[in-house]
Amino acid sequence: MYLETIQEIKPLDEAAMSAARQRQSNLTKPQGSLGRLEELSIKVAGIRGQAIPRLEHKAIVTMAADHGVVAEGVSLFPQEVTAQMVQNFLHGGAGINVLARQVGARVVVVDMGVRTDLEPHSSLVSRKVAYGTRNMARGPAMTREEALQAIEAGIEILEGELEKGLDIVGSGDMGVGNTTASSAITAAITGESVAKVAGRGTGIGDRQLRHKVKVIERALRVNQPDAADPLDVLAKVGGFEIGGLVGVMIGAARHRIPIVIDGFISGAAALIATRMAPKLGDFLIAGHISAERGHRVALKHLGLEPLLDLEMRLGEGTGAALAIFIIEAALRTLAEMATFAEAGVAEANNKLK
Amino acid sequence: MYLETIQEIKPLDEAAMSAARQRQSNLTKPQGSLGRLEELSIKVAGIRGQAIPRLEHKAIVTMAADHGVVAEGVSLFPQEVTAQMVQNFLHGGAGINVLARQVGARVVVVDMGVRTDLEPHSSLVSRKVAYGTRNMARGPAMTREEALQAIEAGIEILEGELEKGLDIVGSGDMGVGNTTASSAITAAITGESVAKVAGRGTGIGDRQLRHKVKVIERALRVNQPDAADPLDVLAKVGGFEIGGLVGVMIGAARHRIPIVIDGFISGAAALIATRMAPKLGDFLIAGHISAERGHRVALKHLGLEPLLDLEMRLGEGTGAALAIFIIEAALRTLAEMATFAEAGVAEANNKLK
Repeated sequence: MYLETIQEIKPLDEAAMSAARQRQSNLTKPQGSLGRLEELSIKVAGIRGQAIPRLEHKAIVTMAADHGVVAEGVSLFPQEVTAQMVQNFLHGGAGINVLARQVGARVVVVDMGVRTDLEPHSSLVSRKVAYGTRNMARGPAMTREEALQAIEAGIEILEGELEKGLDIVGSGDMGVGNTTASSAITAAITGESVAKVAGRGTGIGDRQLRHKVKVIERALRVNQPDAADPLDVLAKVGGFEIGGLVGVMIGAARHRIPIVIDGFISGAAALIATRMAPKLGDFLIAGHISAERGHRVALKHLGLEPLLDLEMRLGEGTGAALAIFIIEAALRTLAEMATFAEAGVAEANNKLK
Repeated sequence: MYLETIQEIKPLDEAAMSAARQRQSNLTKPQGSLGRLEELSIKVAGIRGQAIPRLEHKAIVTMAADHGVVAEGVSLFPQEVTAQMVQNFLHGGAGINVLARQVGARVVVVDMGVRTDLEPHSSLVSRKVAYGTRNMARGPAMTREEALQAIEAGIEILEGELEKGLDIVGSGDMGVGNTTASSAITAAITGESVAKVAGRGTGIGDRQLRHKVKVIERALRVNQPDAADPLDVLAKVGGFEIGGLVGVMIGAARHRIPIVIDGFISGAAALIATRMAPKLGDFLIAGHISAERGHRVALKHLGLEPLLDLEMRLGEGTGAALAIFIIEAALRTLAEMATFAEAGVAEANNKLK
C-alpha cells in the first residue's frame, strides 16, 4: 500500500506558485523585503495547489517508541522516561503541548512502540508495533514487516487527521535512545562517518559520546544496512516512531499537506522518506536546525535551509511548532497585505536601479 | 527630563533571574534543551523583576518621518510613500499590521515628522517635530532642541502605552531615506566606514549605492557629529522617527519593559540610546538580523545576538513582531511546562556524564 501512496505524489503546482509570486510583487513593500517569508508563501502555494493558501487546521504528530539499543548505555535518561513523557504529553505539561497551544495546533500523540502498556486515554492513538525495538548493536532493530507496519500506520494516521481538517503537519518524536538510531540512519543514508553525525542527545558527556559512537559503528557493522533500500535501513537500525514519521510524510505529500520537519529524529525519517519517494522532498520545510550535530548533515543532504536556529534540541515537535508560526506569517502576509493599487501607495522607480 | 528618566534605569533583577533559572532546570526536558528560549525567559525575568513573567499586553510602536537627504537621490521610492504608508498602517494593510495581528500586539502609529499634514485618525498619534528633517548632506538634519523634542515625545508615548497595559514593546519605523540616516549614525557611533554600513535599503542598484555612500560621507564631513555626544549625532545625521525610538527605548528601560529592536533603523536608535544610557542595553532583545548590511555592525556593537534570520528588510517593526512570538514561547514554556516532580518523570542520571 505505501508504494501506491508514493506513486500518487504529484509535483508542486507551478500555476499556483506563479500566481503567489505575482501577488507578492504587488504587495505594499519593497520587492523581496519579506525575504524567506515570500519564498515560503510561494512554496506552500505550490504544495497546496492554491494561489493564496490558508493555515486553518494545524497538527503536530508526536510519535513515541522505545529502543533496544538503550541496553548499551547510550542515554542519560532511564528508559521508562519514554512512557512517562507520553503521560506528560497527554496531560498537556510537555514543551510541545505549550508551544502547540500557542500556535493553535493540535498534538496527536501516538504510541508506535513504547515498551510498556500505556493506559488508554482519549487523546492517545495506539499503533504499537512491538514493545520497543530489539538492540541494533546485536542484530536488526525490527523485521522488514514491522518496518512496513510502522510506515503504513503513519500513512493511516495522517489520513485520519485529514478527515478532521489539516492544512499543515509538524513531525515530532519521543523515545529514549532515538538519537542513537537516527545517527545510524543518517550515517547509513548520507555516507558520513558516525563520529560526524552522532551527538550528545539529552546531554551526555565526552566519555559516553565516544561509547555511543562505538555502539552505532557496531550496529552498522553487524547489520550492514543497504542505503539503496531505505526500508532495509529503517528495519535494521531505525525505530518504530521513525517509521511512523516516514509514513506521515508519505501520506502528507500524497495529500499535498506541507510537512514541517522538527529536529534530528524527523530529519532521519525524512532521509528515509525521500530515499523512498524523491518527489516528497518538495513538500518538506525544515522547521529549525537542532543543536544535535547530525541534524545539519541530514538537512544538507535533503537540500533544506532551516527556518529557525534557536539552539534547541528537545524534539517532541517543538521546533516544528515554532516554525509553523513563521509559515503562517508567510501565508498571512501573502493573503492580507494590501497591494500598491489597493492602498494608493506609489511603486518604486525602477529606472533608478 | 530625558536625563532624569535615564537616571532612573535600574539593573536587571538578579533574584528573579535566579528563580527563573532554577525553574528551567526543573522542567520536564533535558537541561538546556530549549536553548535560546531558556536564556530569553531568564533575561525577561530579570527585566520585569518577576520569576515567571507573562506577556499579556504587547505593542509595536511604528514611528514615521521624512528625511531631507532624499533630495540627494538616495532612495528608490518617491518621498510621498512615507505618508501613503502611514495611511496603509492606519487601514491595517501593511506588513506590520498583519504580523502584529497574528502575534496579538497593537500597532501604535506615530507621526514624528512626516513632511505633509496627515488627516487626523483615531489610531494616529501626532507628535510631529517638523515637516521632515533638513538635508544632512548640506548641514544638520535638525536642531539639538528638535532632537530633544523627539526623544521626549518617545518617552511620553511609551508612558502613555504603559497606562493601557504593556508587557513588551517592539520598535518599528517608516521613512523614505531612513537607511541613509541610520547608516550615518552607525558609522558615526561605531567608527566603521560608510561603505561597510550603507546598504541597498528598499533595493537600489550598485550605481545608486555608490552614490548613497558618497552622500553619507559628505553628511559626516559637513556635520562632524561627535560620537561622544549621542544627541549631537542624532541632531546632525539622524531622523525624527529615530529620535522618537530612542525615547521609547529609554522610557521602556526605565519602566522595566523588554524592548524588541526590529531592523537597521531601530538598531541605529539603539546605538544612540545605549550611548546615552549604557544600562539600557540589558533591556534590549534583537528581534532579527536584517538583510540591510549595517544592521549586523550595529548588533555586534550592541553585543546582541538576533533571534531570527529570515532575510527580511521591510522595517515597520515586522521583525520585532515575529520575534515577540519567540519571546512569548520562551515565557510560556517557563510558566506552563510541568516540572519533573509534577509530571512524575524520572530525571537524568548525571552520574553517567
